[in-house]
Amino acid sequence: MALTPTDITLMARALRLAERGLYTTTPNPRVGCVLSRDGRVIAEGWHRRAGGAHAEINALQNAGTAAAGATAYVTLEPCSHSGKTGPCSEALIRAGVARVVYAMEDPNPAVSGAGLERLRGAGIAVAGPLLEDSARDLNPGFVKRMERGLPYVCCKLAMSLDGRTAMASGESKWVTGPKARSDVQRLRARSCAVVTGIGTVAGDDAALTVRAKELNIADAETVAARQPLRVVVDSTLRLSPQAKVLQGPGKVLIAAAQAQRAEELEASGAEIALFERRGEGIDLRALLAELARRQCNEVLVEAGATLAGAFLRQGLLDELIVYMAPKLLGSAARPLFELPLESMAAQLPLRISDIRAVGQDWRITAKPDPEG
Amino acid sequence: MALTPTDITLMARALRLAERGLYTTTPNPRVGCVLSRDGRVIAEGWHRRAGGAHAEINALQNAGTAAAGATAYVTLEPCSHSGKTGPCSEALIRAGVARVVYAMEDPNPAVSGAGLERLRGAGIAVAGPLLEDSARDLNPGFVKRMERGLPYVCCKLAMSLDGRTAMASGESKWVTGPKARSDVQRLRARSCAVVTGIGTVAGDDAALTVRAKELNIADAETVAARQPLRVVVDSTLRLSPQAKVLQGPGKVLIAAAQAQRAEELEASGAEIALFERRGEGIDLRALLAELARRQCNEVLVEAGATLAGAFLRQGLLDELIVYMAPKLLGSAARPLFELPLESMAAQLPLRISDIRAVGQDWRITAKPDPEG
Repeated sequence: MALTPTDITLMARALRLAERGLYTTTPNPRVGCVLSRDGRVIAEGWHRRAGGAHAEINALQNAGTAAAGATAYVTLEPCSHSGKTGPCSEALIRAGVARVVYAMEDPNPAVSGAGLERLRGAGIAVAGPLLEDSARDLNPGFVKRMERGLPYVCCKLAMSLDGRTAMASGESKWVTGPKARSDVQRLRARSCAVVTGIGTVAGDDAALTVRAKELNIADAETVAARQPLRVVVDSTLRLSPQAKVLQGPGKVLIAAAQAQRAEELEASGAEIALFERRGEGIDLRALLAELARRQCNEVLVEAGATLAGAFLRQGLLDELIVYMAPKLLGSAARPLFELPLESMAAQLPLRISDIRAVGQDWRITAKPDPEG
Repeated sequence: MALTPTDITLMARALRLAERGLYTTTPNPRVGCVLSRDGRVIAEGWHRRAGGAHAEINALQNAGTAAAGATAYVTLEPCSHSGKTGPCSEALIRAGVARVVYAMEDPNPAVSGAGLERLRGAGIAVAGPLLEDSARDLNPGFVKRMERGLPYVCCKLAMSLDGRTAMASGESKWVTGPKARSDVQRLRARSCAVVTGIGTVAGDDAALTVRAKELNIADAETVAARQPLRVVVDSTLRLSPQAKVLQGPGKVLIAAAQAQRAEELEASGAEIALFERRGEGIDLRALLAELARRQCNEVLVEAGATLAGAFLRQGLLDELIVYMAPKLLGSAARPLFELPLESMAAQLPLRISDIRAVGQDWRITAKPDPEG
């Protein structure tokens, strides 16, 4: 059976349901499910958090016996493996669903398609992918981790119109306004890990925590109860045991290239992980692979020009989110990235996908664009 | 008689008519006129170019005898002085117009209100100002020159997302794409003068002319027939007589602090004007006053970080138009403005009034905001 305009409408609805898990499903993906008969919605479900029921199970429970003969719209291929709540494809078969429309296949190459096969084998009509780009955009980290064994890395920067992030002295309170800073809180809250450098920690003594009061979302307390892992790149272990980044709720990982002073910092509750030295710092790709191994989907880099520039130069950034403040900080102030290029031919092309006002500031979303 | 919604609609129409003179009326203001009876438009007129008929005269000629008893909407107070086409207030009186609605008074404090007085003295009902902000925005240069004896100064910049205008070597072809460069052509075409520095001329050898083929507007040839005055700030007269800026159509003024080599450059057709030295350059405020004396309304600064920074630091810029390209040029590249600030307290606040896509680039319009 071919896809219809109603299918698109109902899949879009399932995608919006999935978005409700934006801050809570990690390390699982955000997934939504709509059950319909004759184009009318009979039940909905979405995945709330790892360990809880999957979207399909929630929708089936809401539908009860009405699920028999229904069409299910799921934003991700129903799983065929026994997760904490049993395979969703089995549940759909047992409920007597007649047709399943999916937005995207399971991004894990090892199991991709198996759930759909199981449905087809049970005589269920299967259609898709539908709105696949939107479904992938909903879970950039989960998708990249499954496909490539690396997290999706977003670098957040706050700059003036003239591209400066702080004065030469390091003074930077505040480049952007409260609404932009609240937006950053939401970026942190959706991330599995926040990565910063020892320079930023030593200079700003930022806590890098998610703070419920600053989130400006529903269920802020619940969201802030899960703190992203705070990662400090500190190759020579210079971090002070008194640093605020060590005090807040949630775990801290210090990425170093040597173990000297490790015990002192471990006594502050932090974990030390050692990586190969690379240039002035550590092997950042290995750090990201380690974060993926720890089931980190989305990683937010909040760092100064040195560390942000190192991520950028090594091609490790998937996205830049730049908050641009309506001010000039001048030509002596600090640059956006430590990125010494000599000729126009060496320029780094970007694709800007979005510019919008956030309070008094402007948020620019961009991706490195090798085709640019 | 009070202002009505119909008055607003018809004044908005008169403002749109005035805009048709955007590239051609200088040194006169852009002015539009609508004549109506019973809320219906009976004739329209706008000012095309200095020496030609004023907007009111064009509208009255189009109306003929129907003007008797009509309401006239004029975007600027009708003149009371004998211009090249006689005072417009007299013409409105002679035509038997019953009512005049004006958007703004004459910005020249010496004559402001006189035209309205003349109309009232002849028994005509006078109402206004109406949509005054829009009327002022239509003629920022004319208004500022009349009110303060200085032109309206807009600084155009082309930068990367990280706020860089050129590589350290000076290489800058091209930061922005063809649509942004065409937009700059239109900025030049509406300006009375384009100001640049000897560094930019020596480095880029830019012609700084208006080129009909790149304007992408109707009547491009007519518009390009009036070239803005090209002003090169060159305090020590280093300009090469072979520079392209000297070759194109239109006049060139070299703003210097010494007369040595003046004859050689004058032989190339340029005029030399001497100004007091100030810092590394010349007294830029005196240059602007001289341009106002020459009836320049809008002045466009197209310069590198040194000269643009000098204008900025001396508080001489009314507006920044920044074309932001989706790329990074890196931390060794040239800054937007030479503007050495030491603390956040010294930051220069801006008010961003507009951000929009121009081809692959983004145009940001901002004004210095002392209240910010």
